[in-house]
Amino acid sequence: MKLQNDTFLKALMREPTDYTPVWMMRQAGRYLPEYRESRKTAGSFLQLCKNPSFATEVTLQPLDRYPLLDASILFSDILTVPDAMGLGLYFEEGEGPKFERTLREEADIQKLAVPDMASLQYVFDAVSQIRKTLNGRVPLIGFSGSPWTLATYMVEGKGGTDFLTIKKMAYARPDLLHRILDITAQTVIQYLNAQIAAGAQAVMIFDSWGGALSHNAYIEFSLNYMQKIVNGLTREHDGRIVPRIVFTKGGALWLEAQAEIGADVLGLDWAVDIGSARKRVGDKVALQGNLDPAILLSTPAAIEKEVVNILASYGHGNGHVFNLGHGITQWTPQENAAAMLAAVREHSRQYHSK
Amino acid sequence: MKLQNDTFLKALMREPTDYTPVWMMRQAGRYLPEYRESRKTAGSFLQLCKNPSFATEVTLQPLDRYPLLDASILFSDILTVPDAMGLGLYFEEGEGPKFERTLREEADIQKLAVPDMASLQYVFDAVSQIRKTLNGRVPLIGFSGSPWTLATYMVEGKGGTDFLTIKKMAYARPDLLHRILDITAQTVIQYLNAQIAAGAQAVMIFDSWGGALSHNAYIEFSLNYMQKIVNGLTREHDGRIVPRIVFTKGGALWLEAQAEIGADVLGLDWAVDIGSARKRVGDKVALQGNLDPAILLSTPAAIEKEVVNILASYGHGNGHVFNLGHGITQWTPQENAAAMLAAVREHSRQYHSK
Repeated sequence: MKLQNDTFLKALMREPTDYTPVWMMRQAGRYLPEYRESRKTAGSFLQLCKNPSFATEVTLQPLDRYPLLDASILFSDILTVPDAMGLGLYFEEGEGPKFERTLREEADIQKLAVPDMASLQYVFDAVSQIRKTLNGRVPLIGFSGSPWTLATYMVEGKGGTDFLTIKKMAYARPDLLHRILDITAQTVIQYLNAQIAAGAQAVMIFDSWGGALSHNAYIEFSLNYMQKIVNGLTREHDGRIVPRIVFTKGGALWLEAQAEIGADVLGLDWAVDIGSARKRVGDKVALQGNLDPAILLSTPAAIEKEVVNILASYGHGNGHVFNLGHGITQWTPQENAAAMLAAVREHSRQYHSK
Repeated sequence: MKLQNDTFLKALMREPTDYTPVWMMRQAGRYLPEYRESRKTAGSFLQLCKNPSFATEVTLQPLDRYPLLDASILFSDILTVPDAMGLGLYFEEGEGPKFERTLREEADIQKLAVPDMASLQYVFDAVSQIRKTLNGRVPLIGFSGSPWTLATYMVEGKGGTDFLTIKKMAYARPDLLHRILDITAQTVIQYLNAQIAAGAQAVMIFDSWGGALSHNAYIEFSLNYMQKIVNGLTREHDGRIVPRIVFTKGGALWLEAQAEIGADVLGLDWAVDIGSARKRVGDKVALQGNLDPAILLSTPAAIEKEVVNILASYGHGNGHVFNLGHGITQWTPQENAAAMLAAVREHSRQYHSK
């Protein structure tokens, strides 16, 4: 199964392409009626993730609808990892993910260990099955949460809070937090390497909550552990380099530091002007981003204008993968996603000349 | 009533001081038992704001407890302004502020007007009464929300969301949003000038949600309107310049642009290293910040270490007002706030030499 479209993989490695490749974070998701249908059949979000056939089905859905997508991403969730570490992931309808247990007591933290990867076999099976079904249409991205981000869920028990419990730990008992982060980083290395072995052709680390930290705390508690992971990843598989994308949401203040950890690509949220970001990182890394997903709620004309702005701001040359700055929202009209993809393809060719 | 401690006002104008002055955002607040007592007596948060005697009482509470504070800030809320504009502010126990009406329909937006400042007289009365009661101990800061931040509440009906409704308006109907922002900016100019006339010795614009925008959208929808306000403010009162502080939470990517709007001081949240921020803005503005308030939940020793780091990062010379990067949390032990204030006073003298 020869890869028919390698534009995405080339752009990640800053090699020449004919146009700027594009995919959308959370492209298999609730804005698609076919996804909502699959989810109803599967019974829940977690059952979609844990059943390789369902995961394959929904991973492929956006590709069938939008032929202009240049990459697919494993349908899964970053919280499969703390779930495998024994914290008991569950979802309450209409609310974010939660955990039955939290990691706050020293005794619990001492007991934390790298889980047997067999407990995550359903993820690797999904990767294999998706690769088989894709049959070389576009590359498949594997992913994991960053240790800091996973730790926020493990310590707080949920996401998107003020992070007061984990920050209190970071300053009052940094030794305990470092233990959690270290074990989580070891776990993520094994987890991503198993995804690569199963067929993931690029990997992305999502640091969804790194932006909540101060500069120094970000380096100490988030970036250092992403660096450990990058250093521990399989570099080549099946005769091809496996590019690493690192994305800290809200982290554009720290791009210079991110560019030094050995990642091939940095993800950008919408806050930063991508042209300024490119100047700051030079030729060290490619960049992925960064349209505000809220713009997809407006009109095709407004979307096209913003796509044009981002492409022009990045400018001529290689090393840009177009994406949203965060996951596509469930309220996105499908024709607006299509308008974005068409605008990227139409307006990006002028910036690429072989 | 001669001002007995003008260290804060001098630092705002980058004049020499003996030490780095300090105050804490939301220093009159729920972490203080005397505040909780006053609130119980008043009946609610809004009744504290709307009664000048209660507002005076709680404004003074942190000064009585912490003699090392170099400034006081009017006890009020940024949402008094949209409330005066007719949106019907209310609070539900345990939740954030909400509005009875939202501004989404073109007809409603066309009807929006600058309110009569008489509807905000209780705020100006509070300023006068606080000044009288302070009797020159420390300067008094007046404040307002930024037009963008106030508009998020007016359009969304509440704060801290994904801002999808207002962003959709920003991209699909920018004319409507600009109308809201323009009228709000005119209102804020009158509001802050009336606070200055009543005795506010410095003013601060809180742009709590500017950080949710993209670079271009921040300039267009938030920063431009803060510039209009700064241009419309009374520059001198009672023989003294009234310094202007502009603070966009999550906005440290855009400090260079913020430094150009005529503000004397930029507020910093904790994400940015204050030394890097100082290099980026040069001698255009003073800086205020930027300890992560979560650190106040840890230990006095950890707090002292972080205070030392921030002071050292800013380095020698004038133009630094120490503060938290956001409001102090209700779970802060009072002795930890005291430890921060003592550390600032103790360790900052070495960076000031007249």
